[in-house]
Amino acid sequence: MLIGADYYPEHWPASRWETDAAMMEQAGLTVVRLAEFAWAKLEPEEGVYDFSWLDQALAVLSAHGIRAVLGTPTAAPPKWLMDRYEGMYNVDGYGRKRGFGSRRHYCFNSPDYQNAARRIAAAMGAHYKNHPAVLGWQIDNEFGCHNDEVCYCEHCRREFVRWLKIKYATVEELNRAWGTVFWSQTYRSFDEVILPGYAQCDGENGRNFCHNPGLLLDYMRCRTDNICAFLQMQVDALRQAGSRQPVTHNFMGTYDRIDYFKLAKGVDFVSWDNYIRHQWQAYPFEEAALAHETMRGLKKKKFWVMEQQSGPAGWSVMGDTPRPGQLRLWSWQAYAHGAQAIVYFRWRACLFGAEQYWHGILDYDGVPRRRYREVAQTAGELTRIDTLLSGGMPVNETALIKSYDNAFSHRFQPHNPKFDYNALLLSYYEGLVRNGVSCDVRSIDDDLSPYKLIILPAFQLLTTPMAKKLEDYVSRGGQVVVSFRSGAREWNNQMTERTLPGLLRDLAGVTVTEFNSIFYGEPIAVQGPHMAATASIWCDLLEPDTAECYARYAGDYCEGTAAITVNCYGKGKAWYVGCDLDKDGMAVLLGDILKGAGIAPPVRGLPDGVEAVLWKQENGRKALFLLNHAKTPAVIPASSFSCNLLTGEPVSGEWTLGGYETAVLG
Amino acid sequence: MLIGADYYPEHWPASRWETDAAMMEQAGLTVVRLAEFAWAKLEPEEGVYDFSWLDQALAVLSAHGIRAVLGTPTAAPPKWLMDRYEGMYNVDGYGRKRGFGSRRHYCFNSPDYQNAARRIAAAMGAHYKNHPAVLGWQIDNEFGCHNDEVCYCEHCRREFVRWLKIKYATVEELNRAWGTVFWSQTYRSFDEVILPGYAQCDGENGRNFCHNPGLLLDYMRCRTDNICAFLQMQVDALRQAGSRQPVTHNFMGTYDRIDYFKLAKGVDFVSWDNYIRHQWQAYPFEEAALAHETMRGLKKKKFWVMEQQSGPAGWSVMGDTPRPGQLRLWSWQAYAHGAQAIVYFRWRACLFGAEQYWHGILDYDGVPRRRYREVAQTAGELTRIDTLLSGGMPVNETALIKSYDNAFSHRFQPHNPKFDYNALLLSYYEGLVRNGVSCDVRSIDDDLSPYKLIILPAFQLLTTPMAKKLEDYVSRGGQVVVSFRSGAREWNNQMTERTLPGLLRDLAGVTVTEFNSIFYGEPIAVQGPHMAATASIWCDLLEPDTAECYARYAGDYCEGTAAITVNCYGKGKAWYVGCDLDKDGMAVLLGDILKGAGIAPPVRGLPDGVEAVLWKQENGRKALFLLNHAKTPAVIPASSFSCNLLTGEPVSGEWTLGGYETAVLG
Amino acid sequence: MLIGADYYPEHWPASRWETDAAMMEQAGLTVVRLAEFAWAKLEPEEGVYDFSWLDQALAVLSAHGIRAVLGTPTAAPPKWLMDRYEGMYNVDGYGRKRGFGSRRHYCFNSPDYQNAARRIAAAMGAHYKNHPAVLGWQIDNEFGCHNDEVCYCEHCRREFVRWLKIKYATVEELNRAWGTVFWSQTYRSFDEVILPGYAQCDGENGRNFCHNPGLLLDYMRCRTDNICAFLQMQVDALRQAGSRQPVTHNFMGTYDRIDYFKLAKGVDFVSWDNYIRHQWQAYPFEEAALAHETMRGLKKKKFWVMEQQSGPAGWSVMGDTPRPGQLRLWSWQAYAHGAQAIVYFRWRACLFGAEQYWHGILDYDGVPRRRYREVAQTAGELTRIDTLLSGGMPVNETALIKSYDNAFSHRFQPHNPKFDYNALLLSYYEGLVRNGVSCDVRSIDDDLSPYKLIILPAFQLLTTPMAKKLEDYVSRGGQVVVSFRSGAREWNNQMTERTLPGLLRDLAGVTVTEFNSIFYGEPIAVQGPHMAATASIWCDLLEPDTAECYARYAGDYCEGTAAITVNCYGKGKAWYVGCDLDKDGMAVLLGDILKGAGIAPPVRGLPDGVEAVLWKQENGRKALFLLNHAKTPAVIPASSFSCNLLTGEPVSGEWTLGGYETAVLG
Repeated sequence: MLIGADYYPEHWPASRWETDAAMMEQAGLTVVRLAEFAWAKLEPEEGVYDFSWLDQALAVLSAHGIRAVLGTPTAAPPKWLMDRYEGMYNVDGYGRKRGFGSRRHYCFNSPDYQNAARRIAAAMGAHYKNHPAVLGWQIDNEFGCHNDEVCYCEHCRREFVRWLKIKYATVEELNRAWGTVFWSQTYRSFDEVILPGYAQCDGENGRNFCHNPGLLLDYMRCRTDNICAFLQMQVDALRQAGSRQPVTHNFMGTYDRIDYFKLAKGVDFVSWDNYIRHQWQAYPFEEAALAHETMRGLKKKKFWVMEQQSGPAGWSVMGDTPRPGQLRLWSWQAYAHGAQAIVYFRWRACLFGAEQYWHGILDYDGVPRRRYREVAQTAGELTRIDTLLSGGMPVNETALIKSYDNAFSHRFQPHNPKFDYNALLLSYYEGLVRNGVSCDVRSIDDDLSPYKLIILPAFQLLTTPMAKKLEDYVSRGGQVVVSFRSGAREWNNQMTERTLPGLLRDLAGVTVTEFNSIFYGEPIAVQGPHMAATASIWCDLLEPDTAECYARYAGDYCEGTAAITVNCYGKGKAWYVGCDLDKDGMAVLLGDILKGAGIAPPVRGLPDGVEAVLWKQENGRKALFLLNHAKTPAVIPASSFSCNLLTGEPVSGEWTLGGYETAVLG
Repeated sequence: MLIGADYYPEHWPASRWETDAAMMEQAGLTVVRLAEFAWAKLEPEEGVYDFSWLDQALAVLSAHGIRAVLGTPTAAPPKWLMDRYEGMYNVDGYGRKRGFGSRRHYCFNSPDYQNAARRIAAAMGAHYKNHPAVLGWQIDNEFGCHNDEVCYCEHCRREFVRWLKIKYATVEELNRAWGTVFWSQTYRSFDEVILPGYAQCDGENGRNFCHNPGLLLDYMRCRTDNICAFLQMQVDALRQAGSRQPVTHNFMGTYDRIDYFKLAKGVDFVSWDNYIRHQWQAYPFEEAALAHETMRGLKKKKFWVMEQQSGPAGWSVMGDTPRPGQLRLWSWQAYAHGAQAIVYFRWRACLFGAEQYWHGILDYDGVPRRRYREVAQTAGELTRIDTLLSGGMPVNETALIKSYDNAFSHRFQPHNPKFDYNALLLSYYEGLVRNGVSCDVRSIDDDLSPYKLIILPAFQLLTTPMAKKLEDYVSRGGQVVVSFRSGAREWNNQMTERTLPGLLRDLAGVTVTEFNSIFYGEPIAVQGPHMAATASIWCDLLEPDTAECYARYAGDYCEGTAAITVNCYGKGKAWYVGCDLDKDGMAVLLGDILKGAGIAPPVRGLPDGVEAVLWKQENGRKALFLLNHAKTPAVIPASSFSCNLLTGEPVSGEWTLGGYETAVLG
Repeated sequence: MLIGADYYPEHWPASRWETDAAMMEQAGLTVVRLAEFAWAKLEPEEGVYDFSWLDQALAVLSAHGIRAVLGTPTAAPPKWLMDRYEGMYNVDGYGRKRGFGSRRHYCFNSPDYQNAARRIAAAMGAHYKNHPAVLGWQIDNEFGCHNDEVCYCEHCRREFVRWLKIKYATVEELNRAWGTVFWSQTYRSFDEVILPGYAQCDGENGRNFCHNPGLLLDYMRCRTDNICAFLQMQVDALRQAGSRQPVTHNFMGTYDRIDYFKLAKGVDFVSWDNYIRHQWQAYPFEEAALAHETMRGLKKKKFWVMEQQSGPAGWSVMGDTPRPGQLRLWSWQAYAHGAQAIVYFRWRACLFGAEQYWHGILDYDGVPRRRYREVAQTAGELTRIDTLLSGGMPVNETALIKSYDNAFSHRFQPHNPKFDYNALLLSYYEGLVRNGVSCDVRSIDDDLSPYKLIILPAFQLLTTPMAKKLEDYVSRGGQVVVSFRSGAREWNNQMTERTLPGLLRDLAGVTVTEFNSIFYGEPIAVQGPHMAATASIWCDLLEPDTAECYARYAGDYCEGTAAITVNCYGKGKAWYVGCDLDKDGMAVLLGDILKGAGIAPPVRGLPDGVEAVLWKQENGRKALFLLNHAKTPAVIPASSFSCNLLTGEPVSGEWTLGGYETAVLG
């Protein structure tokens, strides 16, 4: 277990470094991330490299037992570089250069930029390939975090054309796949193809979702491939320079505008940046949990948190400060879900720059206060428990299927103003948490056989092999849950011509006779023997073929029509959930589904706000993390666990877990 | 009576056409609209035409008794064309090209585009001039539907300059009319004149309403003339090619950024696109009714609905699906208000393109379901009743005056954030409906003598001849209602220098001593012997000269001041309504006005939600349409009508009309 | 005392001028402002001047005893001028020219524009330098009123580079001051420096607040200097042309994007434009009062109101009309706070142009009505009282410190979405008003010794000399109030590295151990022996060193922690207010502070809505203005004043002041 901090020696006088390193050691920190925005310091002029300051910082740190991940600094190209070559800036949908003065202002597809990025990566690789304190590399920083997963420059258009030529071979095939006959958008040659920038109709910063849906989807797929290639180019540069240290990139949790399954293929391990509460949002704990699960799912192994929030955060304004106990709680949550390293952002609040308000473990004055003490306590505890549980892993019997292709498609055409693909995934995840279990996050391409239950909400883009895979899975005894819109489209973003739910119709044993987007109307009641719920976004009207009805609509014109069905298929079952559900309704439904699938929670009857994460240790024994996200104490029911490994105290019968407290039951 | 569908054979394999045509015939459909977005199919390369597929589709359709309106496809110029010539794209107020990838991306004033449009229209005209299945032409599609009634390119500026030279002859006259002395905006020559694009101050997508009001108004008038010329050019091309088939354009109901009275002059009949509930809005039934009336008023004759909603609709999101019975109800409403053809949009939901969610009679899978059955039932009923009422027409004793010039002027300077010219017209129309009557919509230039009552809300731009016309009308016994802001401006958008209500002061017999825009303040009570209402937008403070007070303000600083007056003028009466009114207040006021004008509803005491439309048949007998827009049954009071022609059942005393049901009383 | 109107003879036929002048005289008006937008009339072609119409207007007016302030017309350059030279338009953050058609469309730094402005100023100066009716000059009009305090053109970038070279001498020093090491933004030469235009991340019309904070602050400081230079250039042109008449500019009250203390140095007297209720906002009376105080504070002497609202106001929409009595009330408020001239905007509502809805004393029809009568009454009263109180001045024992540098810094990074520097200043001012006193507004650079109490809310940018000045002030017996964020930054916008409140820590005798921006959380209670208040934006957690606790947090995780403290320091006291407060809480706090500072209100127990402004007359006697901003009468408690000079009636014991009424007690 590594605990550390993101550290910027270049922001402070060298004379302070020793103090910082000693304080880090004192707090139990053993790792730092360095240099990911330091290009101007590392290469002050083209081809002139200066690693002396970084060497010196590494020396000071390693003297205190601290090792480092180094960032390639390509997220912040310096002014001299941007001035040196034309056409390196990211361009928005209106054709406007996103100028200098922030970060991530570059175009992934600019050949000049790629060359510059390759050179700095190679230089760093050559210099640090054998450095004992250099643990590994972070390539660039948070791809896409300023909507820069897209760019509309001519480099990018040419790259898109190239990508399309490979995919479609002939322009006729492209026209067919996209349906360009609609509105006379037929292309006579690949070179005529446009990027989906500013056009007539609705827009969002020049991104126009009235473009051809096939074009929009392929554009996003191409962008993922462009970004993967940019990452790979840097990895190659490091390897060619002789570095064998492992490589990562800091992902962004539930962000879904890059296909993270593809991006993860290019790194040795996944790391991610975990901010619970900042300028733009305050996340519920279930969303952080689902993000952790997603990150662990990308490579199906443990991950790092490369930036873990350690104080108030924001650029022009700040979110509320984490309450005493929350930094520790959030760290335990990360660990429970599979973090093998937690690196706090940042060591110390910065005196200057756009992130003045993005606080660190230390305040501006460098004085250790409650956040430092809490981190130190946490580091000690985590290290101790990690030794105890060594080799353990979270284990789940359920898999939630995440599909970035589907995320892209839903984003352009969300069906309903209240619909959001991520939010729907989260609502299923919350339903699991309410039933005391978690789940793995998987791609449809992954092996699903280890799971008793798999859930694919709104999985609309679907291929025949995928449908076949699901049928096989269920016929062998698996249980699957699909929701409204699953099976509604072809993989090229065309609507399916099959009767809905399309390729899933046999499996689900149900026909969707029509659907209703609840836009101007009232929510519609959904009732069954166990549930009295409400749909407020979408209603499929179902006609069971071989399926049985689990719940019906009770109201409006669809009164009495089936809303949720379950179909026996081979040795398994397929659920079709034709509507969205409120939280209570989802918890009841998933309770029944879990029960039917033979999935029991480790502790029954956990109160709201308490999260349970189950581990299997190397010795085969189980361990259970209980995380109380409420500020008030929670009463925990009796379970089969007998001891709280964190406190060393025995646990029996009903007992109380303090506000923001964690227990590790063994 | 024609019933049909908008059909896109080019979207489906030719092998499906026969199935579609047979299903259309089965449902009683006899007309389709074709080809209005098929330019790329019709002219795949410059000057190379391919009508074979369309000929074949027409052959299949006409074998099933189905004839067609053909669209000239100029709303969607293909990529090869846009690439071929410079300067054809529409340009927004910021000077940005609205690029390829949507539709309506062209500039009306581009000479190259005009040539290309003329050529395709001529080619189609030549090919189909004698085709027995071609009923007529639709020119282009929905002018202005993506804010493209405006364009800020240099073509458009030159065209504006040309237009101004004709209108004003000398630049001194232009300067005087616009008052360019304000803020030193004086032009020394016509060529210096600008378009009202991006400038200092407030903006809306680069359209800046702080520009000179005279310039803004003339720009909109010029745009109408440009668009009329573009339409006329295509009509001329068809005629020169030898086609004698009638010509239409699909208008957009209450849309008011083109002067529809002028545009309608260029077509043989008006058609329009009627969507009640879609991605952007859900209209109250009164608004659909007023839109129908407006469309009938444009040429004072029956019209087509060229696109009648037939399912859920939207681009990125969908509105609620029409409830069972609503497609039929909306069709009856269209018929009652004068539709002689109803063409449903679209035959079948499209698998690809930006309108994937804009559903048709058939779903994606082509299977007929409830919407198909409802359309078939409606087609049968409409055909039967239309035969029965052949030659009948809606008749009204009231005319609501709509002025596009006034709409332009109000849009730039709406006086109050809550004020909207269309909404004010609608509030008067709703007041009529609440009193059981409808009205004709007329231009101030029309013959007003057939009416007992005419209503001109917020008719601020007013000329002396118009005022004289109103005086003559009233002095001969007519009744007129004008509202606050009527008479407040000259025709060139200058404020009148006359004491308010300006040219209407004698007629109304009242002086507006001051006015109050209710912006930060509270609504103000308006009371009279019959009414206890509320103004929440605007209050004119009135000093009756020869008029009598009908209602007074009861509150704020204008307590006791006259708010609504009525003036005897010659043999008639002129009402001045100095404020907006809530719905109940408006219903009471109009009840009194109608009574005084001797206009009696065909049925007294209709419940809310039931619309009445009165027809006069060729034999002189009356027929009455009653439309229950509520989903629950309505109790209809006794009337002089004895039979429901739709059911064939007698009607006497109080009786019940089902939810979403229509009766045709004779 | 001068009373007048903004008059536009060029908008009306010359034949009307005599009528206007006679009506002005009749109403007691003695001054007009002329010509500030009349460039196109004064210089219809380059170098061709026409003063004849203005000479004639001046002749007509002066025959009625009316003199004039002439505006240099540079806020509205004519079309011929903008067409004549390249690069004169203001450019927004996206690089878009703010085009012709409004006003203020020029760039302050365009050499060609500067030349043109200098020439017209010089020509006017030469022509009117000895004109007996010309009282003085207004330079340009409302600098910055359309966000044009900024411009992003290449002229402006070059000017910024020039300014930075002078300020920093070396680029290394600039890099250090801004902390460009953050995100690799290091500049290698001054010429590389950018303007803070469009870049990645958040934006607001292309102004991007994620730019380097040091750059953002210096850019705003440079803009102030640019604007001051532009004003000075015109003043110099007038002086060189021989004019000795005093010079002003019309400021905009609480506007804070130009450093008004600096701008005021360039004028002989300050004037400002006072609109209480218009299209964009309705101000509480305290905000108007604070604006008057700010304007008087700029040069520490009486000022003009150059535009005083006289009717409904707005561009596309209008605010509510001023109620009877309010024009008079607002005029008395202006006078009480130090206006030595009140010029109403405008004489008569204009028939054309963007300000058609911005009304005047007269309506469009030129007929005098209640607003004319009210202005006439007010003019008479003001003149009478001004004679009586001749030489008197408002006197205050409290100074509120306003810092434009701090305003700039807070605007870019407001800490919390609900935080606004101006609003915080206003909340303190309202607290004073609730305690029956007003205050002077001062710069930190002003002499503070006359005051018993000074208040510096959120004074975050702070230098050592400033801190020393405050310490000296308090040690000699003064009382000072600082709030959360005071002392948090260095003058270059870096965060202080000192423990908070930084340079104020000794003075306040308190340590800020941490802080909490209340963003997603609930308001937090603040309690003390006298107060039960609420903080809803910000909480500093305080650890008193030598200070005493005045109030504590009562809730959330900071329960019991000090929130407000007071520290004895030398002979004085320093208050530290660690949070924002609701209005009642602020009134209680300031009541205690005022009491402790020995500042007693002239009348105790004034009801809400009544404002008190105390004057000292030349003879040393006091006079007290009481302004009842409520529409209902207010009961005034007994005081030491015995007579209402306005009515001439004696005042004793409790008495009643009518709604919207003013009393001048002597």
